[in-house]
Amino acid sequence: MIKAGIVGGTGYTGVELLRLLALHPGVAVHAVTSRSDAGKRVDAVYPNLRGHIDKVFVEPELNSLSECGVVFFATPNGTAMRMAQALLDKGIKIIDLAADFRLKDGAVWEKWYGEPHACPCLLSEAVYGLPEAQRSAVRNARLLANPGCYPTSVQLALLPLIEAKAIHLDNLVADVKSGASGAGRKAELSLLMSESGESFKAYAVDGHRHLPEIEQELTQAAGMPVGLTFVPHLLPMIRGIHATVYARVKDDTLDFQQLFETRYRDEVFVDVLPAGSHPDTRNVRGSNRCQLAIHRPQQGNALVILSVIDNLVKGAAGQAVQNMNLMFGLPETQGLEAIGLYP
Amino acid sequence: MIKAGIVGGTGYTGVELLRLLALHPGVAVHAVTSRSDAGKRVDAVYPNLRGHIDKVFVEPELNSLSECGVVFFATPNGTAMRMAQALLDKGIKIIDLAADFRLKDGAVWEKWYGEPHACPCLLSEAVYGLPEAQRSAVRNARLLANPGCYPTSVQLALLPLIEAKAIHLDNLVADVKSGASGAGRKAELSLLMSESGESFKAYAVDGHRHLPEIEQELTQAAGMPVGLTFVPHLLPMIRGIHATVYARVKDDTLDFQQLFETRYRDEVFVDVLPAGSHPDTRNVRGSNRCQLAIHRPQQGNALVILSVIDNLVKGAAGQAVQNMNLMFGLPETQGLEAIGLYP
Amino acid sequence: MIKAGIVGGTGYTGVELLRLLALHPGVAVHAVTSRSDAGKRVDAVYPNLRGHIDKVFVEPELNSLSECGVVFFATPNGTAMRMAQALLDKGIKIIDLAADFRLKDGAVWEKWYGEPHACPCLLSEAVYGLPEAQRSAVRNARLLANPGCYPTSVQLALLPLIEAKAIHLDNLVADVKSGASGAGRKAELSLLMSESGESFKAYAVDGHRHLPEIEQELTQAAGMPVGLTFVPHLLPMIRGIHATVYARVKDDTLDFQQLFETRYRDEVFVDVLPAGSHPDTRNVRGSNRCQLAIHRPQQGNALVILSVIDNLVKGAAGQAVQNMNLMFGLPETQGLEAIGLYP
Amino acid sequence: MIKAGIVGGTGYTGVELLRLLALHPGVAVHAVTSRSDAGKRVDAVYPNLRGHIDKVFVEPELNSLSECGVVFFATPNGTAMRMAQALLDKGIKIIDLAADFRLKDGAVWEKWYGEPHACPCLLSEAVYGLPEAQRSAVRNARLLANPGCYPTSVQLALLPLIEAKAIHLDNLVADVKSGASGAGRKAELSLLMSESGESFKAYAVDGHRHLPEIEQELTQAAGMPVGLTFVPHLLPMIRGIHATVYARVKDDTLDFQQLFETRYRDEVFVDVLPAGSHPDTRNVRGSNRCQLAIHRPQQGNALVILSVIDNLVKGAAGQAVQNMNLMFGLPETQGLEAIGLYP
Repeated sequence: MIKAGIVGGTGYTGVELLRLLALHPGVAVHAVTSRSDAGKRVDAVYPNLRGHIDKVFVEPELNSLSECGVVFFATPNGTAMRMAQALLDKGIKIIDLAADFRLKDGAVWEKWYGEPHACPCLLSEAVYGLPEAQRSAVRNARLLANPGCYPTSVQLALLPLIEAKAIHLDNLVADVKSGASGAGRKAELSLLMSESGESFKAYAVDGHRHLPEIEQELTQAAGMPVGLTFVPHLLPMIRGIHATVYARVKDDTLDFQQLFETRYRDEVFVDVLPAGSHPDTRNVRGSNRCQLAIHRPQQGNALVILSVIDNLVKGAAGQAVQNMNLMFGLPETQGLEAIGLYP
Repeated sequence: MIKAGIVGGTGYTGVELLRLLALHPGVAVHAVTSRSDAGKRVDAVYPNLRGHIDKVFVEPELNSLSECGVVFFATPNGTAMRMAQALLDKGIKIIDLAADFRLKDGAVWEKWYGEPHACPCLLSEAVYGLPEAQRSAVRNARLLANPGCYPTSVQLALLPLIEAKAIHLDNLVADVKSGASGAGRKAELSLLMSESGESFKAYAVDGHRHLPEIEQELTQAAGMPVGLTFVPHLLPMIRGIHATVYARVKDDTLDFQQLFETRYRDEVFVDVLPAGSHPDTRNVRGSNRCQLAIHRPQQGNALVILSVIDNLVKGAAGQAVQNMNLMFGLPETQGLEAIGLYP
Repeated sequence: MIKAGIVGGTGYTGVELLRLLALHPGVAVHAVTSRSDAGKRVDAVYPNLRGHIDKVFVEPELNSLSECGVVFFATPNGTAMRMAQALLDKGIKIIDLAADFRLKDGAVWEKWYGEPHACPCLLSEAVYGLPEAQRSAVRNARLLANPGCYPTSVQLALLPLIEAKAIHLDNLVADVKSGASGAGRKAELSLLMSESGESFKAYAVDGHRHLPEIEQELTQAAGMPVGLTFVPHLLPMIRGIHATVYARVKDDTLDFQQLFETRYRDEVFVDVLPAGSHPDTRNVRGSNRCQLAIHRPQQGNALVILSVIDNLVKGAAGQAVQNMNLMFGLPETQGLEAIGLYP
Repeated sequence: MIKAGIVGGTGYTGVELLRLLALHPGVAVHAVTSRSDAGKRVDAVYPNLRGHIDKVFVEPELNSLSECGVVFFATPNGTAMRMAQALLDKGIKIIDLAADFRLKDGAVWEKWYGEPHACPCLLSEAVYGLPEAQRSAVRNARLLANPGCYPTSVQLALLPLIEAKAIHLDNLVADVKSGASGAGRKAELSLLMSESGESFKAYAVDGHRHLPEIEQELTQAAGMPVGLTFVPHLLPMIRGIHATVYARVKDDTLDFQQLFETRYRDEVFVDVLPAGSHPDTRNVRGSNRCQLAIHRPQQGNALVILSVIDNLVKGAAGQAVQNMNLMFGLPETQGLEAIGLYP
């Protein structure tokens, strides 16, 4: 039984981790930290967990975590990088759901996150944990950077095409839409029901923090730079990401449907829908699955790839558990069998 | 392994049954019928089930069901009563999620459902399957009438008070609000997103079909007639029922919080929240749980009981699985462990 | 042209007042104050007002308001009572959309609002501005207390019955549901899209601040105390209130439909729907109208009155403009002609 | 006073026309037709119109319309083309809100709409009524084709760039998202609250009927063919369209913000937001306005134009009234002053 610690258990990725780990047969939740709610029962803050988690939030200190086999950081950016070395030194594995270890280049990290990286020497060791791209590295990781929600949806849409050198790389477009839970559990005016309900908007068009992460990974897959325009949008709903990705065909003799089906044949969490499909975010709600559809409108030179995930599961906590399973030699799907909640 | 048949697998209660049974360790889904979708793959109609159900919809005929140990009817009212006797004759147990066997009096049934009952002789045998009230009868049932969604939420709110003779029975009020999925998967104008989104209304104030069912069961529990005003409302959301039930205190020396906690102490699917709580429907979304809170405003003579369920789970498919578990001697919670999907 | 000032122009009632006053032919918006946004253009904060309001938010000081003929307070409770006397002394009329002047008894005010009233001597002069009940007093008011949103919906549902002595008064129930905008534009966790979307709950069951206001006005109309259980709920939508009010018939020879139609025959903003109707909140969205329906289920002794308003219009800013029109001798409907925005 | 007829008054564009025309000082609604609701009062079907429209739906026959000065078709595609010539022969002007007269080429029309055009000789006379592009032609039109909702949002985003020859035309992308009311008031499963609420998807990726209309108009503006990938999506909300349009810069010395501000300086219904803005659909809800923002992420060679409208107003009924005002020499804004309903 793996003892798991969760640092930052009061955000949406934290409570989603608790939902998944509470029923995971190979894991015992050992400690859940929260600066703001320390001393309160976890199930008093999250009544959906009553009867499933019998813990009290504790302060985020090393002592509380020292018996854990793995510690998840479901914290704001900038937290994990300050505690990582000490935990690794105790032989504790780390899975960071924030962005502290996703970028390889400390200077790029500093540019986008607005402060110097506190632990740059670990950046090269950290494994970027998209299992469908890096499974063997994940298995051996001590320090795992869990991908962002937008980057997961976009990379799964583009990797087969990039690996097959099937598209032009200079002018990709990723128009991505996220439910409000992606913005986290923060008391901000713009996230109020009355502000973000029954309305839709783009944001951060001039540069979102997930852009360098996507560029880094796609560039690595391509072996050359990619040009990507990435525009995130806020949907008037809670869970779900839909990426609509546009690329231009390079080799038009390819069967793109076949290409995707072959690439993901053995991936249990990536589901290529039949030709002509339009995935709904609702069909993956609460599940760790990405559903994909590939279109080539009017057999022209444009490809449109549709990619949906639940931002809190395959886009965060579910992928973290998938990575944990790999890191500890457990079956990759353990604790992740839930079916999408439709309707 | 119990072989299960589902008649009417294309409605919301049908697909929810499939979601639950697909992961139930003691059940194999043997046949799923649909008049409208016969011949199509189940997972082509419900892509959330891809990889979980490898079946094709078949016509609703006895032959398809003859090897089943249990048949669920997730059909419109008036279907189960026409097939029940033939199935029972083959030794197949029946769980009807519609209303055909909920009322004991055929004349009352005819009044509310607008046609003579096709099988009145079975009405007395049928067991009304609210396990928290009738567990031992459920265990022995061949023919089980699964309660309606509204009646489940209202009865669980009132049973402790009625059993304890703690309230006046002549003037109860149940103001109940349901998500749109409670109205079923029917192409009706009034259920469109553009009609029922961002709006709220009452309906059927002059008499809803769930009224006689609630009156029958409360009258039985009380041993005398109850006077109930029941008003259903349509919420601009998908899943969830919230009943707000009003009663007048008869014995004001009672500790009502304690009364509820004691009554439901051993009920794993009924969760009495701490005094002062206000349950959210979201905390039971996707789970088989009812959460309750008891209030006595300003210590006056009015009681207000708040009761939330997921209409498709504890209000339909989950309760049906709970009943099946009891009827077949399985652990009552098997296949029903899911935690409410928050947020 | 009346010069209007708005104190607290950054909340939802403030911006709704601006929307209405910007197109009102008899009013010029002279000053809009905001502590938090002083110095910013109004239409930079509220882009829906671009081209309609050419003002900059100013600090809430007397000087800015001294040329106004009327000042609206769209502020938190406790603000208007500190500025009212000074404005009245300058001959400026006041319309307070908050609760400072709604209660006649300073001790009751202090009990519910948690501080001593700063200006108790004005409580008796202030007119409670429900025009359908107090039109002539409103016409002569200097200091007008605009009713709360819940109280407006409940009073319009009960006044005809109380005035006609048609119901028992000891055990009324008002089960009322409000869209999220009723909670105001405040950065609170519980109001986030991810918290209040796709979910429903009651709140403040043990006592909401609108209760004493309703009790005061109904008691006055009845000439005797009324016993009311009032339970507010939060709807997963933005605008709209639906009150479901329960009463027991005293005189069962009455034609209740006729009673309501007669009572409101000359009221342009109260619309009694045909018998058997179920009002939708959407049909009054953005309009100053209350729609009512009266039911007597199965001709028993229970009455159910359904009452819908837009909480920001007839429940706040629209009613304030209606009151202003009366106070200044303008046509009562001026600036309030908008039709409900369906769908 | 212009006598207006509305053919097809029971859909969302029909009822929205009624909402606008009921308060238009220069128009009297003379006849409203409906095949399905003939004989019913208009305000019985649409209670938001009570007190504003005192009409009964009539059958869609020429006789009912013969006294009109203008007839609006708010019908399914294929209706207006069968009645147009007869109305024109009586001197009645026509505004078709459907697609019958939007395309100039009858063969293209037949390809996309699946039947031969019934009245091809009128295609060349019909004026495509985007006033911001064709104001003088609109003024002189007898037969006006009101643009589609998607095409309005996309053209207003691209016209300034195309007219200024500022972008490459071979690889444009329009990723457009619409509220559910854009799909009309049709009893279809996919439009149910339970299906389209809390979910998001693309549809018709392989070819939507609005594509040829956009291509025709952009090609005409450019004087050469344009290559456009157009992907529509369904938002979990009711009203509003958000187009996110991607183009590559050709002349990078241009000030694109300035270009848009200059192009639309005199357009009262097109509002170019300050640089750096992200328009919300809510800010134009219920108003006839398009709000635009222009971004050039990281000063690269990609342009991103954000364009929002209310699909039922500037995308349908409001634009139809704007066109009517021009065709009859009325002030262009008459009856269209409403401010966006925020929140």
